[in-house]
Amino acid sequence: MISPKGRYEFVIDAYLTDFRGKATLPMIGGFMLQAATKHADERGFGYSAMTSQQRVWVLSRMAIEMFEYPKNDTVMTINTWIVSVNRLFTERHFSFEDSNGKLIGYARSLWASIDMETRKPTNLLELYGLSGYIHTGQECPIEGLTKIPTLKDNYELTPGFIVKYSDVDINKHLNSMKYIEHFVDVFDIEMFRDKEIRRIEVNYIAEGHYGAKLDILKREEENGVFVLEMKDKDINVCSTRITWK
Amino acid sequence: MISPKGRYEFVIDAYLTDFRGKATLPMIGGFMLQAATKHADERGFGYSAMTSQQRVWVLSRMAIEMFEYPKNDTVMTINTWIVSVNRLFTERHFSFEDSNGKLIGYARSLWASIDMETRKPTNLLELYGLSGYIHTGQECPIEGLTKIPTLKDNYELTPGFIVKYSDVDINKHLNSMKYIEHFVDVFDIEMFRDKEIRRIEVNYIAEGHYGAKLDILKREEENGVFVLEMKDKDINVCSTRITWK
Repeated sequence: MISPKGRYEFVIDAYLTDFRGKATLPMIGGFMLQAATKHADERGFGYSAMTSQQRVWVLSRMAIEMFEYPKNDTVMTINTWIVSVNRLFTERHFSFEDSNGKLIGYARSLWASIDMETRKPTNLLELYGLSGYIHTGQECPIEGLTKIPTLKDNYELTPGFIVKYSDVDINKHLNSMKYIEHFVDVFDIEMFRDKEIRRIEVNYIAEGHYGAKLDILKREEENGVFVLEMKDKDINVCSTRITWK
Repeated sequence: MISPKGRYEFVIDAYLTDFRGKATLPMIGGFMLQAATKHADERGFGYSAMTSQQRVWVLSRMAIEMFEYPKNDTVMTINTWIVSVNRLFTERHFSFEDSNGKLIGYARSLWASIDMETRKPTNLLELYGLSGYIHTGQECPIEGLTKIPTLKDNYELTPGFIVKYSDVDINKHLNSMKYIEHFVDVFDIEMFRDKEIRRIEVNYIAEGHYGAKLDILKREEENGVFVLEMKDKDINVCSTRITWK
């Protein structure tokens, strides 16, 4: 049987890094999805195996903590493994290493599987193979996934955006990494010069549809900690808590 | 000596494809840059070799023709090679193969190298190794790179966008592939249902700076052929010609 832990290398291409010459959070998030996709494919519960059963994976929550951002023209290694499975959710963890094998970050993610037609959750315990790959020996020393409270008042309304062709996935909904891209773009580039995002936590709540105008609400909860909320009129589509250090 | 032609594989991850379940042009463009980066690195004129000489590569023109777009969960192979070098420019070609080795598209690109400080062009003939890798035996049966004429009248002004953190590269300028993303997003998603972009040609003219509000002008030149122009006030930043089939 193939090992429960997957290990994948990603080159931090210079043309993809930000103005600091470092990987961006949406880029790291994209690599995480690539690693998760490969890990699942190799173990029999990837995209094709799922669609053959009329199911798709849906990301529900995610937290990424970076102690250091990899520099351009280096290789980042992502380890990923499944830590738990129940009827509704499976939790997947990640660790990130720089070119020298130094641990530079961790991430946690919570996934559900929905029926392609009904969009209702399906039972993950019925999913062939998944439970056999649970790997508990590996530490992931960052805070767990939490529910981010709704912003009720004292928030700032930022310009927002209209969901376009490049934003949407195969379901015509905003793709998971594009949420992060739109959230980090709320901050002025000068903040990235002096500080770094140490932790980002995301709750994916509803689907952002093509053509929708999404507002982004922003409130600084404490010094350097922001809660942002993406809304389609009254519907909360996605929330995030971003901690700068 | 390493072969003049590079061959690289890219997985079309399901979560990155568009609503049709197919690779998008910005995604293919991104893979092209990755292939070019690796090809140059392996042959001694990549990002690090260039910066050690105070130079960076700058993309000047590009044309991509796709006869077919690769589907999600398949592998696309990109071949790339250098066809010419003179003082100011080097031309690089690409061919694209699907999982079965069928040729599904080609691309051409024109690159200059500029000094990191003065932003002035540097002499490519002085660049160690580059001329030795010219490869002329390979066909690239698509139209050449042309100068796209400026839009003077009869154009439509589309909403445009503000250049944000996620749009900019290490020079704080709009990154090459983000131009394509913003250009294709001008079209309604319904066009992608009925048709495909057969050819896109891009002229990179000036740099799109962080914080700038860029307008996008659009004119249908003939049935299914559009010229789009990205402008920062009066300055033409980038032009494209997009052919739908």
